[in-house]
Amino acid sequence: MKVRILVSLKPGVLDPQGRAVHHALEGMGFDGVEDVRIGRTVELDVADSTSDEALEKMCEQLLANTVIENYRIERLG
Amino acid sequence: MKVRILVSLKPGVLDPQGRAVHHALEGMGFDGVEDVRIGRTVELDVADSTSDEALEKMCEQLLANTVIENYRIERLG
Repeated sequence: MKVRILVSLKPGVLDPQGRAVHHALEGMGFDGVEDVRIGRTVELDVADSTSDEALEKMCEQLLANTVIENYRIERLG
Repeated sequence: MKVRILVSLKPGVLDPQGRAVHHALEGMGFDGVEDVRIGRTVELDVADSTSDEALEKMCEQLLANTVIENYRIERLG
């Protein structure tokens, strides 16, 4: 089973990488970009029997830094 | 308008970060993990008038390295 985990910075947490990309897009002449935030994805191929609980534990313990990041788990089937 | 761009390594491209995460998950006792791939997301807040063409151009020119990466554009509305 494929699972995608989306990890993003919590609102209010400074995102220097996003600011750099925003700045670069403006410099390249792309208008109308108001905000840019960078996150990451972890695509897991796991056994079908893997529980939601196990996936959450992976996020809490390794994949996300829950002090500054939110995560969302999407089962892709 | 919110737009999410998912950037992932093309199949076959080595993903050392994914391998490290895979190894760590196994070391922590999570069974049944068969593969791990790490990607990134770029969440843009753009003007509603932004065309698909402009978004594709941003990806091709800055957000993705199309030699080794695929990207997918999702309009979140």
